[in-house]
Amino acid sequence: MQAVGVNCLGVLDTFSSLDTIFIPKNRMKRPRKGYISFVTQSGALGLALLDLLATENYGFSKFVSYGNGTNVDEADYLEFLKDDENTKVICVYIEAVKDGKKFMKIASEVAKKKPVIIIKGGKTEKGAQAALSHTGSLAGSQEIYSSVFKQCKLIEVNTLREMFNLAKLFEKLELMNLKPKGKKIQIITNGGGYGILTADSVSENNLELPEISINLKKELKKKLAPIVTVKNPLDLTGIAKDSDYKFVLENCIKEKDIDILLTIVLPQTPLISENIVNLFSEINNQKKKPLVVISTGGDFTKFIKNRMEDQNIPVFEFPGDAVKAIKRMVDYYNKN
Amino acid sequence: MQAVGVNCLGVLDTFSSLDTIFIPKNRMKRPRKGYISFVTQSGALGLALLDLLATENYGFSKFVSYGNGTNVDEADYLEFLKDDENTKVICVYIEAVKDGKKFMKIASEVAKKKPVIIIKGGKTEKGAQAALSHTGSLAGSQEIYSSVFKQCKLIEVNTLREMFNLAKLFEKLELMNLKPKGKKIQIITNGGGYGILTADSVSENNLELPEISINLKKELKKKLAPIVTVKNPLDLTGIAKDSDYKFVLENCIKEKDIDILLTIVLPQTPLISENIVNLFSEINNQKKKPLVVISTGGDFTKFIKNRMEDQNIPVFEFPGDAVKAIKRMVDYYNKN
Repeated sequence: MQAVGVNCLGVLDTFSSLDTIFIPKNRMKRPRKGYISFVTQSGALGLALLDLLATENYGFSKFVSYGNGTNVDEADYLEFLKDDENTKVICVYIEAVKDGKKFMKIASEVAKKKPVIIIKGGKTEKGAQAALSHTGSLAGSQEIYSSVFKQCKLIEVNTLREMFNLAKLFEKLELMNLKPKGKKIQIITNGGGYGILTADSVSENNLELPEISINLKKELKKKLAPIVTVKNPLDLTGIAKDSDYKFVLENCIKEKDIDILLTIVLPQTPLISENIVNLFSEINNQKKKPLVVISTGGDFTKFIKNRMEDQNIPVFEFPGDAVKAIKRMVDYYNKN
Repeated sequence: MQAVGVNCLGVLDTFSSLDTIFIPKNRMKRPRKGYISFVTQSGALGLALLDLLATENYGFSKFVSYGNGTNVDEADYLEFLKDDENTKVICVYIEAVKDGKKFMKIASEVAKKKPVIIIKGGKTEKGAQAALSHTGSLAGSQEIYSSVFKQCKLIEVNTLREMFNLAKLFEKLELMNLKPKGKKIQIITNGGGYGILTADSVSENNLELPEISINLKKELKKKLAPIVTVKNPLDLTGIAKDSDYKFVLENCIKEKDIDILLTIVLPQTPLISENIVNLFSEINNQKKKPLVVISTGGDFTKFIKNRMEDQNIPVFEFPGDAVKAIKRMVDYYNKN
């Protein structure tokens, strides 16, 4: 992978240890090896995000900031990443497409092979004026861009946060070769309020919360404490132990009427131990259904989160972030 | 402040060092002193958020988790916080209001004195069913709740992330006694792409990006490098030094046609030093216009961010988060 564009702030390849970013490491942390690749027309944006996401345990494969792309453009980079086995999902920040026909041809081919998430700078008139000063880009009509992206089956997002939440979800699922069969979600939680907000978010995003089947209910009631109401969301309450999660997940993963296991773990309560990582990992390694975790908290929580992510379980900080990412992911696999 | 409700998981008062949360500190970090108070019907939700936000340099004043509120309800807590001088902004998580008439009377009085941000669990049918099992709350119609909140001038949000972004903004502005005169925003950046995405977000949120006046343009051109196009967003580019920000902010803060200074600082570039905190603080201490910062990155960035926040400058990680919070803040002061 060669970066030859003028105004190109750098290339990073964590697999070959190539690093042409001229920023000292005490200013910008380099991310660990991973399977997200990121192509950006804006250098500073790319570097700031790599720096942030490196501290959040994100792994990246290739990064390239190509600026005004004098002789290699966004489509060329996409084409390269299409066949890169270390790239499972591609993120793109773009202000304008250089050659529309070429872009459409290549982008559609790439999108057939792996998810491509794209954010467009200069969607509004004011933003477009700024893009003209920045990379000399004629940002063009947002309607046209959005319909081109849609036609090519690229996943357009509105915010950077949304982009990288979704990238994490795709990276883990693609690595595990896990695709949900549908949009039926079972919520399992040890915090009532979090379960409720997650249920609200699931409904608002037109995903489904199926009732727990009679047989599953019977099975779960055998071992769970009487305080637990066996419903969806399933609130294990603050007395939940690691083994309760294991028991519930093992039963739910066999259930026909559940496509995705959305599990909230608030590890503040002392009955949750770090062994929960191993238990979740065993479930995830069965590769039967996507297992997504929501976990909010400080140092201990982040320790658990990072270890789960190292086992290819995607973990999110807030219910809204997790559900929004799941929604886009379900729509993507539904169409592909 | 006395917590007597059954199912009450704890009370925290950072000013009197009262702490009745029965969770060890290695599992849940306590936040530092600050001026946000948080009333929550869900205990686990509250504790997880305190734990997270403590690691993000958030300061809290009072925290109370009141569960099913047997003899003290949400309105009583709001009434107490109304006159608490250490509370500048109140956050509320609620599943149902216990006594509608009492709540409306008290909430409207409180909202006249300080911003109250509220999130309602059980907005959807599925969420409401879960709330019934959780705190025995009849979650009721979301339309009625939303219109009651609106009538009482409470600020209703949809996600926890939105709630605490906004709480931070209000806390800092109220402490500095800074209210924007209008919705005209000047963006200053050292990253072109970030400036563009921020401009897009400002336009999408119906805030304004005024043109830079002829006089201000003349003034700014005197010292800025020729590569800098003097526009809004003002892109100082990767060569920006601390002193460039100081020069620009000092000029913009005097400008009649600017209400809010929205400044992007990507501190990866070596010409930014930690002295930028002092320079920003001097501007902020003039108390002329709200100064809001967007800063994305790892350890060095977070060091800068935390020090700025200690000087009552609100700092956000992503453009979308900052602009959304500004939008709600502008609407609030516009109505009050």
